[in-house]
Amino acid sequence: MNITMNQLEKSFARISALDHATAILDWDEAVVMPSQSGEARAAAQSELKIIKHEILTNPKLYELVLNLECKNIALDPWELANLREIKKLILRANSVEKDLIEAQSIATSECQQNWKVMRDDNNWKSFLPLFEKIVHLSREEVAQRSKSSEPSGYDCLLDQFSPGISSNQISEIFNQVKLFLPELTQEILDFQMKTDRTLLDSSKEHLSASIDSQKNLGLSLMTSLGFDFTKGRLDTSHHPFCGGTPHDVRITTRYSQTDFIESLMGVIHETGHALYEQNLPERWTHQPVGMARGMDIHESQSLFFENCIGRNKHFFKFMFPIIKNNLFKNKDSSIPLSQIIFDRLHQVKKSLIRVNADEVTYPMHIILRFEIERDLILGKLEAKDLPEVWDLKMQEYLGLSTKNDFKNGCMQDIHWPSGAFGYFPSYSLGAIFASQLFSTIKKEDTNFNENLSQGNLTFIKNWLRNKVWSQGSLYTSQELIFKATGENLNPVYFKNYLREKYLE
Amino acid sequence: MNITMNQLEKSFARISALDHATAILDWDEAVVMPSQSGEARAAAQSELKIIKHEILTNPKLYELVLNLECKNIALDPWELANLREIKKLILRANSVEKDLIEAQSIATSECQQNWKVMRDDNNWKSFLPLFEKIVHLSREEVAQRSKSSEPSGYDCLLDQFSPGISSNQISEIFNQVKLFLPELTQEILDFQMKTDRTLLDSSKEHLSASIDSQKNLGLSLMTSLGFDFTKGRLDTSHHPFCGGTPHDVRITTRYSQTDFIESLMGVIHETGHALYEQNLPERWTHQPVGMARGMDIHESQSLFFENCIGRNKHFFKFMFPIIKNNLFKNKDSSIPLSQIIFDRLHQVKKSLIRVNADEVTYPMHIILRFEIERDLILGKLEAKDLPEVWDLKMQEYLGLSTKNDFKNGCMQDIHWPSGAFGYFPSYSLGAIFASQLFSTIKKEDTNFNENLSQGNLTFIKNWLRNKVWSQGSLYTSQELIFKATGENLNPVYFKNYLREKYLE
Repeated sequence: MNITMNQLEKSFARISALDHATAILDWDEAVVMPSQSGEARAAAQSELKIIKHEILTNPKLYELVLNLECKNIALDPWELANLREIKKLILRANSVEKDLIEAQSIATSECQQNWKVMRDDNNWKSFLPLFEKIVHLSREEVAQRSKSSEPSGYDCLLDQFSPGISSNQISEIFNQVKLFLPELTQEILDFQMKTDRTLLDSSKEHLSASIDSQKNLGLSLMTSLGFDFTKGRLDTSHHPFCGGTPHDVRITTRYSQTDFIESLMGVIHETGHALYEQNLPERWTHQPVGMARGMDIHESQSLFFENCIGRNKHFFKFMFPIIKNNLFKNKDSSIPLSQIIFDRLHQVKKSLIRVNADEVTYPMHIILRFEIERDLILGKLEAKDLPEVWDLKMQEYLGLSTKNDFKNGCMQDIHWPSGAFGYFPSYSLGAIFASQLFSTIKKEDTNFNENLSQGNLTFIKNWLRNKVWSQGSLYTSQELIFKATGENLNPVYFKNYLREKYLE
Repeated sequence: MNITMNQLEKSFARISALDHATAILDWDEAVVMPSQSGEARAAAQSELKIIKHEILTNPKLYELVLNLECKNIALDPWELANLREIKKLILRANSVEKDLIEAQSIATSECQQNWKVMRDDNNWKSFLPLFEKIVHLSREEVAQRSKSSEPSGYDCLLDQFSPGISSNQISEIFNQVKLFLPELTQEILDFQMKTDRTLLDSSKEHLSASIDSQKNLGLSLMTSLGFDFTKGRLDTSHHPFCGGTPHDVRITTRYSQTDFIESLMGVIHETGHALYEQNLPERWTHQPVGMARGMDIHESQSLFFENCIGRNKHFFKFMFPIIKNNLFKNKDSSIPLSQIIFDRLHQVKKSLIRVNADEVTYPMHIILRFEIERDLILGKLEAKDLPEVWDLKMQEYLGLSTKNDFKNGCMQDIHWPSGAFGYFPSYSLGAIFASQLFSTIKKEDTNFNENLSQGNLTFIKNWLRNKVWSQGSLYTSQELIFKATGENLNPVYFKNYLREKYLE
């Protein structure tokens, strides 16, 4: 290998070690850390971040990149892509002043902490000045980034989570979704109204299960889906997440004694993330090109497993006996358990809270947030006007009002208080990616439904491994989807997927 | 504060963050890490070590130290001591060449891994060449260190674990112990032979307890001893240890279903370490002067709690009801449980294995290792002659032979295969420190025995907090013991402690 390339790779192996430490410390904080150790942990994490930033902004590192670009050395496609990703990371790290990073760190930490209490108190008035600071600093970040790195404007925030896709492209896709989804949602709601609701309404009492048995169910399904327990774990945390490193993937879920669906779907969702991480290209471990493509593709994998598989009627034939065996062995056989659980998994309902939304109504929650945050960052909207705009859009998109209900309105998510503008679109881009991948695989596997009903995921996993997981960050997500499905990202697949699943 | 001092402190806050990460990753590896994630973890840990080494060996850091020394700036005693510790760390990091550090890292990793298998197979022949490499590299390390940093020779290895004490001083102390301990041991054995052995021999069946109840017992005693659970945890690992950071102390123990004594004494021992860490001076968190003094003082605290308190007959009056309540609530009351457990806690027996040795015979195991490793490092003894010398010394010191029994002889400990020469003395220095502290506190607390029998440790803990815990690394351990007890380290206290405990 080229010496300069080797030096570059070594620097990124070092950065990867810092990322490893940060990821395990994050897991530790969410899962096992004692209650009063947070301050020392935050200080340590912040120092690790600074060390990483110093390595990335060391001028010698960028010289190596320029050196490689000038010398016209023959690099293979992976090396070229790695160089592209490296250059992007370095320019990105250099594009924001240190003072701003520190100011953001202090402001988001303050805003996040207060948000928890103020949201519970529906206290928008006290929250607003803290949040205005966050918006102000994010606009400043955009201004600084736009000077020296691509892309610019709101798109440079988007780019952290869904690299390579512009806000114009997202607008176009989301506008298509807006054209069909409200109507389709109403059709599905009408369709579901016609079926017998008594079962669903009386179902709650039948979904209770001990946390131990729910945990065993989760472990059992993770095994069926192919999670590698020699290089990963399942634990419990307040919010489910997939963390750790590709060689040590830590997923979590949370348990409700009265409703096992929450922990189960959490486990399946996070297992989708985990399979992506556990199957990234081994040769490029520690290098930027060896990492997952972005949050949009990551979310496509978790939603593929949660919704396209976990809520698939054929897979349910395989999954139900496992659920029954783990949770309801001695349940009165006269109860139509299978129907109750199936209906619960497919229940569609317009609601105020994004995280509780089903896969049909979910995108409208996201489109609302995308439009608002874009305008907020571009200065077309001020923080103080947020509740009003939120309420108007909620009424338009989901027919619900959040007037004076900040808690269940614009204060519900942690993303904005923590300064994570640009994140939301990745959820629905992921859902659309997932449906397009699902449709393609279904066409290619002649025995698709039968395989699903037997829990045989060999074809699906080999396909995803070849086309997505093993590709790391070799391509942009747009290229990736084109190469995998022969077509650009197209929301028609999402529409057809929902129509087939909920209306047929 | 002085600007230069401030800059120095900032660098060490950064190093402390790396230490924080390393410590939590170590805990994670021992307690929760999946089986096949070790290689990636080792790589990450090694990179963190290199980053720390680079910060420590950055010439600018040493310039700051020299600057402060030259300028004759008024520093308070803590700042002066911090500067002394900082200088020592920097000189130490600079005294060994990078190539040697890497060679040692590879050789110890190889030797340690093979040691586990070869020890079980009693395979000295295959182990020898691997171990010779370790000895060779340690001698090279000593040669390099002796050129540029104090102290020199074998003492520079000692200094990592028991800073400020020389091998001559240790020889002198250990020679005094050798003068009285073999005879005293025999006296105790004769004394114990005279008492009724039937209870002890039949006791094993009465020491079984479920692991859950043992865990609750451990947590209950940790609470009684003053462990702060808002800044620490108890977990399970293969070998008990105290890790984490002062603000997040992670102790572990291991459980035997058939003998609760092991987990219990493990918990009390590690709680001693933990109390030291949790009570270090808050102002000097992250700075070298704010850290525990050394492994000898650390071990004095764990042994103080394990042996001076946990095996004290007055404290037993308080501890036994807690044991009974947690483990043996429904036990047949005709069984003399209290006597059985008390005897088991005080049983003295000459044995081959250090980690199983009681507090009376333990120092002879250590003296043997100290004498051997010193000669090995100084070239007065070669690795190949180890088994013979070990056997001779075992016969002389404990009247037991290890001829051809490498597994229970010179291959039993992990320290040497991992290159940790100089560590062993700290165990027995700690025991002697502990007995001297114990004797002093006992004299000062007019209600000592009564307090112990009520589990009231207020006087003891205030004393230790004032004289030891809050002192961090302000003094050398020799100064510390002199200030605390009004006398230099004196093994007569150890002798009197044992005599009073086991013969009266």
